[in-house]
Amino acid sequence: MAPFLSRRDLQFQLYEVLDTAALPQRPRFAEHSREVYDDVLNLAYSVAERHFANHLREADVHEPHVVDGKVKLPPQMADAMRAFREAGFFNAHHDEELGGLQLPWVVMQAVQAHFQAANISTSGYPFLTIGNANLLREFASEGQQSKYLTPLLEGRWFGTMALSEPHAGSGLADITTTATPKEDGTYSITGTKMWISGGEHELSENIVHLVLARIKGAPAGVKGISLFIVPRYRVGEDGRPGESNHVVLAGLNHKMGYRGTTNTLLNFGEGGETVGEIVGEPGQGLAQMFRMMNEARIGVGMGAVMLGYAGYLASLEYARERRQGRSPGNKDPHAEPVSIIQHPDVRRMLLRQKSFVEGGLALGLYASSLVDDLHTGPEEGRGDTGLLLDLLTPVVKSWPSKYSQETLSDAIQVMGGAGYTRDYPVELYYRDNRLNPIHEGTEGIQALDLLGRKVTQSGGRGLTVLLERMSADLAASEELEGVAEIRTALATAVAQSTAALRGLLAQAPTLGPDRFLANAHSALEMLGHTVVGWMWLRQAAVAARKLPEARGEGADFYRGKLHAARFFAVHELPKVKAHADLLASADPTTLEMQEAWF
Amino acid sequence: MAPFLSRRDLQFQLYEVLDTAALPQRPRFAEHSREVYDDVLNLAYSVAERHFANHLREADVHEPHVVDGKVKLPPQMADAMRAFREAGFFNAHHDEELGGLQLPWVVMQAVQAHFQAANISTSGYPFLTIGNANLLREFASEGQQSKYLTPLLEGRWFGTMALSEPHAGSGLADITTTATPKEDGTYSITGTKMWISGGEHELSENIVHLVLARIKGAPAGVKGISLFIVPRYRVGEDGRPGESNHVVLAGLNHKMGYRGTTNTLLNFGEGGETVGEIVGEPGQGLAQMFRMMNEARIGVGMGAVMLGYAGYLASLEYARERRQGRSPGNKDPHAEPVSIIQHPDVRRMLLRQKSFVEGGLALGLYASSLVDDLHTGPEEGRGDTGLLLDLLTPVVKSWPSKYSQETLSDAIQVMGGAGYTRDYPVELYYRDNRLNPIHEGTEGIQALDLLGRKVTQSGGRGLTVLLERMSADLAASEELEGVAEIRTALATAVAQSTAALRGLLAQAPTLGPDRFLANAHSALEMLGHTVVGWMWLRQAAVAARKLPEARGEGADFYRGKLHAARFFAVHELPKVKAHADLLASADPTTLEMQEAWF
Repeated sequence: MAPFLSRRDLQFQLYEVLDTAALPQRPRFAEHSREVYDDVLNLAYSVAERHFANHLREADVHEPHVVDGKVKLPPQMADAMRAFREAGFFNAHHDEELGGLQLPWVVMQAVQAHFQAANISTSGYPFLTIGNANLLREFASEGQQSKYLTPLLEGRWFGTMALSEPHAGSGLADITTTATPKEDGTYSITGTKMWISGGEHELSENIVHLVLARIKGAPAGVKGISLFIVPRYRVGEDGRPGESNHVVLAGLNHKMGYRGTTNTLLNFGEGGETVGEIVGEPGQGLAQMFRMMNEARIGVGMGAVMLGYAGYLASLEYARERRQGRSPGNKDPHAEPVSIIQHPDVRRMLLRQKSFVEGGLALGLYASSLVDDLHTGPEEGRGDTGLLLDLLTPVVKSWPSKYSQETLSDAIQVMGGAGYTRDYPVELYYRDNRLNPIHEGTEGIQALDLLGRKVTQSGGRGLTVLLERMSADLAASEELEGVAEIRTALATAVAQSTAALRGLLAQAPTLGPDRFLANAHSALEMLGHTVVGWMWLRQAAVAARKLPEARGEGADFYRGKLHAARFFAVHELPKVKAHADLLASADPTTLEMQEAWF
Repeated sequence: MAPFLSRRDLQFQLYEVLDTAALPQRPRFAEHSREVYDDVLNLAYSVAERHFANHLREADVHEPHVVDGKVKLPPQMADAMRAFREAGFFNAHHDEELGGLQLPWVVMQAVQAHFQAANISTSGYPFLTIGNANLLREFASEGQQSKYLTPLLEGRWFGTMALSEPHAGSGLADITTTATPKEDGTYSITGTKMWISGGEHELSENIVHLVLARIKGAPAGVKGISLFIVPRYRVGEDGRPGESNHVVLAGLNHKMGYRGTTNTLLNFGEGGETVGEIVGEPGQGLAQMFRMMNEARIGVGMGAVMLGYAGYLASLEYARERRQGRSPGNKDPHAEPVSIIQHPDVRRMLLRQKSFVEGGLALGLYASSLVDDLHTGPEEGRGDTGLLLDLLTPVVKSWPSKYSQETLSDAIQVMGGAGYTRDYPVELYYRDNRLNPIHEGTEGIQALDLLGRKVTQSGGRGLTVLLERMSADLAASEELEGVAEIRTALATAVAQSTAALRGLLAQAPTLGPDRFLANAHSALEMLGHTVVGWMWLRQAAVAARKLPEARGEGADFYRGKLHAARFFAVHELPKVKAHADLLASADPTTLEMQEAWF
């Protein structure tokens, strides 16, 4: 069985491309060292391998189902939760006073990457819980924190985020779940929520739903939405889960993949009262949720990267071992068949996968390092860091979701019929990852967010910061050997993207919002490939600097980085132009299509 | 439930784009008329709807499994086979003296399209049988025809094609299944075959395996391969299936999709002798099989088209009905949500799907019409027709396989979370279609076939014929209104493709075969999009000619054709350039990658 993660590449990304080993110079991380981080990552690998990878297929074949009114999960999941809890991963990034290790977010994300790679659907439960706790930590009152946050951080209770409703998925402005104020300051919640991951199970003592609802009489639209803590079981004076809070499981969704994560339809206030506590002020619900959502979007992108990466490694191992055919130049039928990695088209597919997953990993960890910079970096740079992170978030969410699907399609293709069977994990990764362009904001939503909000916010400062950083890396790599292709291709893509965006923005006043946004998808594609090209330049520059001193496997590793960068430069970055041209032309084809013509 | 097929578009393709109604002018089809073809297509729709579509999900959920040594299938499949048989579809294209209707192949393919759209995995059984019978009709002796062909044509016996072995999938030169001559002129067959679709079931009285094997002492490589008829049950003097022929089911493959078609590992000569009869002369096996294979490749392409088409129709219906969100220009939270087809990005995805599936359908039926021309068209054009069909076959197989997967991904995306659940068919189509780039020759094999064989064979005459036909259609559409975008974009793509191929061919002598073929994948992409662009020009030209006289729904249909052509011109054809540039540069990136660098 192929490894689910490349530990060598993770080390490269954290310590050679990013300067994670320097983080202990910051006061919050003063107790840390690279050894601490490595120990944590080693622990993550071992827990992921022993307690998550062990039931990857099981969680797919025996998906959650209801027996005697309870959601039944594969029994290994409870063991996985115990191991995750005992390793301290529920709260490793939190303050020491909360029992945490104050781990940097980039290290925390690297820890999570192991579980995403080993078993994405089982890892959904703790990750939703971590996101839920982060939100409470930021916005909940002190009383709410001691009541709800503590058991979440200890991994005894789990969390969800309950946004969508049957008639309102992407369109949150139209939610109708209602919160009626009660005399004691709490609220009575009624309504139905759809697509709630981890919405019901027996893995934890309680489930803390974070629910978007509208206080009776609140204004229409997003301004009338507030956020509520709604526990599955009401919490007694002793802090322990007590009677039912009447959150009723109305149904399970049966998905193509990602099956181990229960996905539920929940009725609030069925057969009794559902009591909720408001978080912060009324009307702040969507803004608060977006704190969690932005984090979740980086998490989705990283999950996509790791699924793609695991598929790449599986197909790579297969391609090294499977023997079949000969080179076109060899006509001798008595010659032994070669391993299929020798066939150029197989190598093309493996290189393409490598360029996608290693580029995606660099991007996800870079964004995670920006989260750290935002909170613990030099004060004067934080404004720019925040804008850059805002700009990159839709790309970090969408690009790997899409290109890991391409990766996994190539992984299946490399393995041929074998890859199409359930005897290997690649078909499962392919089904699992297909969710990623959908949840936590579809690809279309991300494109609108990018072009309609992030590119223009604060006078376009985020885009300027991005361009400055890319230019700086281009300038710094000018003298390096072996990076010519990626430098040239990136510079071209940057110029094309910049020109397209400037061209479109110049027309914006006359175009109106619908036409300005009509080709937002191309903006996402264009900037996505360009940003990943930049991630490849960063990796290639490190490899070029280190290659002269490296020997053996170490040298092979750097040569692989340089060659994958070249592949991305030559095979992928030229695709930017078609998107840039379309965007710059403000092409109205989709707008002018009429429903009756379909 | 959405319809699985657009009958209006099928009529358009057959009678307005192609001149199918003129085929009865040819002697072989003299008894026919358009009414005959329409009756046949109506029958196909009704049988497909009632007996195939009815168990689409059932064939996925209750996939073939072994009970008491027998392969158990959903019971509706036997009923489907009966209905298909009673409709006369097993032999409708064969000579009247064989009980057939002498239907043109393009009509036969249109008939099959209904079953592929309604239930691809159930339709696998009759289609393999039809292909098997076509091969026997062409190459088997008279005695073999009366013994095996008759029951196949009557749909009482079913057929398979048994090529691959566990160690030899794409690399057929290395098969080791052995045929040992017996005194009576028959052969004793021993060996193991892998990935045999329809290899074991109880749907028919007998199964006729067409098996590639090596006669003892035959030369290595493809020249030593012969073709054998190997029945599951030996055939008695009375022509009835008798004792076991010792073809033993060694295992079932469990696939991601396409589950209803049993896929088997078969042992020949286990527990007793397996007797086979040779077809034609020794050493001709691969050439004979490729007769069936080329037909199967068009069938795979058409199957892919129809899966994509069914997914497009399902997502189109959903997009018309589902209401969600408002346009970016509408800030009123009290406004009613719009149907999601009003959102430009949803319309983009629907237009993209439409451009892929209707372009693919045009291509598949065009290729099928070439099959007719080859056999019944004017004598003097048949040489060119054959070369053009040869050239197009890898494109017809690969392009829809790949772009229907994109279509189905868009169909899921349009439907969001709903599309990802098993409550709707699009996730199933997505899993089913992922097989199509793999079986009957992988995408990589098709690319090598295209660039390494078809582009250059007969002095490049096939390519010349293609260019001539595209130029003729470009010239003929010069004066038409509403086709400017597709004309311009196609002319550009043709020029880019031609220049790239000429550039590469000019370098061929110095490059050597490995480097010449290193970017074969880009040749396939480039020619695929160009040829589909041509198919869109052909459709747009018809629509432009007919639109002035059309009214109401008729006019909407033609406007839809013109707009989809424009979409393909503006959004898709510009992607040709990146592939053309890569091909022309004979880029060696994939060749230079070393195994140790991965």
